[in-house]
Amino acid sequence: MKKNLIILFLFSLNILTNAQPPQIIKLTPPDTLRGIPVMQALAHRTSASSYDTSEMKIKDISDLLWAANGINRPESGKRTAASSYNSQDIDLYLFLKAGVYIYNPKDHQIELVVSGDHTDLIATTQEFVKGSRQIILLVSDISRFKKGEESEKLRWAAIDAGIVAQNIMIFCASEGFLARPRVYMENEQIRQLLKLNEDQHLILNIPVSYNK
Amino acid sequence: MKKNLIILFLFSLNILTNAQPPQIIKLTPPDTLRGIPVMQALAHRTSASSYDTSEMKIKDISDLLWAANGINRPESGKRTAASSYNSQDIDLYLFLKAGVYIYNPKDHQIELVVSGDHTDLIATTQEFVKGSRQIILLVSDISRFKKGEESEKLRWAAIDAGIVAQNIMIFCASEGFLARPRVYMENEQIRQLLKLNEDQHLILNIPVSYNK
Repeated sequence: MKKNLIILFLFSLNILTNAQPPQIIKLTPPDTLRGIPVMQALAHRTSASSYDTSEMKIKDISDLLWAANGINRPESGKRTAASSYNSQDIDLYLFLKAGVYIYNPKDHQIELVVSGDHTDLIATTQEFVKGSRQIILLVSDISRFKKGEESEKLRWAAIDAGIVAQNIMIFCASEGFLARPRVYMENEQIRQLLKLNEDQHLILNIPVSYNK
Repeated sequence: MKKNLIILFLFSLNILTNAQPPQIIKLTPPDTLRGIPVMQALAHRTSASSYDTSEMKIKDISDLLWAANGINRPESGKRTAASSYNSQDIDLYLFLKAGVYIYNPKDHQIELVVSGDHTDLIATTQEFVKGSRQIILLVSDISRFKKGEESEKLRWAAIDAGIVAQNIMIFCASEGFLARPRVYMENEQIRQLLKLNEDQHLILNIPVSYNK
């Protein structure tokens, strides 16, 4: 495992496609000095309509996931993204060619949910999405809202996902990476694949890649 | 009008509280080089639980509104915030002590909707919110979605508001300003005040201030 990690740090997630993927991949600590000025990133913010097919380095995936919804205040466990009543309802699933991982912000690592390439379930018929070798899926677990009507919880879930999505978009704009928030996907098939329960709702997916 | 504008540029919106507020306030061009590195802003991202009572300078309000949902590609009119099907459904209302303004991204100006201090309708019983002298209200006009069931439109509206909200939060984190996304407000009274129609939905409000 340790040797694997070193290889991952130095190179990329490419090697995962050729072997049984690791159960756990430790991410590199977030580089909290990284990026261009915020307003400059906003000036560059755009939604991609094509993707680069190379796989991203672990360091970039690490910073991307932390930016999205990582813990920025370890003493309280609070996040880069606000959530309704600090319910932290948004989970991030990372679809790679090797398998689908879930992001564990507490340990800043990704954990295997199911092996294999399932990105087609996200791309559906949109061919341009298939170029991306990493897709982030935003799932809200509305059971974490301790109050509220069902309709309110679904609204909060969508707001909270939008917040996380924009963290991803701004990080990508800062780095010159390609990204686009999408609501299209094969909902039922993905739910079955990830063994989601009825409280877990697929809200958005964001395919990401380097610039070409 | 021109003299008014100059005063506003040099000082702040304070003077608005002492006179009939102007119908239109031209904003300063966005400073697209402003801010700290994106990851550093994310590291500082937090939700405020108290506010400073001073009023913000026009330059800060200008950059804040542009960051939130301004036009970052003038040739196409596209925004700093993605929206479902590029429907640009989110309008920003700015509650100031002098009145409520709506942000016009095309002309990068704010336009008076109703005069007077109506911030109490946003604060409700949350005393800490009353400190803020500027509150941004995010309203989705779901008639701009040209397809979709009502329930889908409401979900997209909430996602799109979350995206705009995080632009505001990250800009504020970058500048050391205080901000917090909230769903609480006096919905019906605000709808009447702003003369909203049934397609316009109040999604979020974000009181903002300088740091103390």
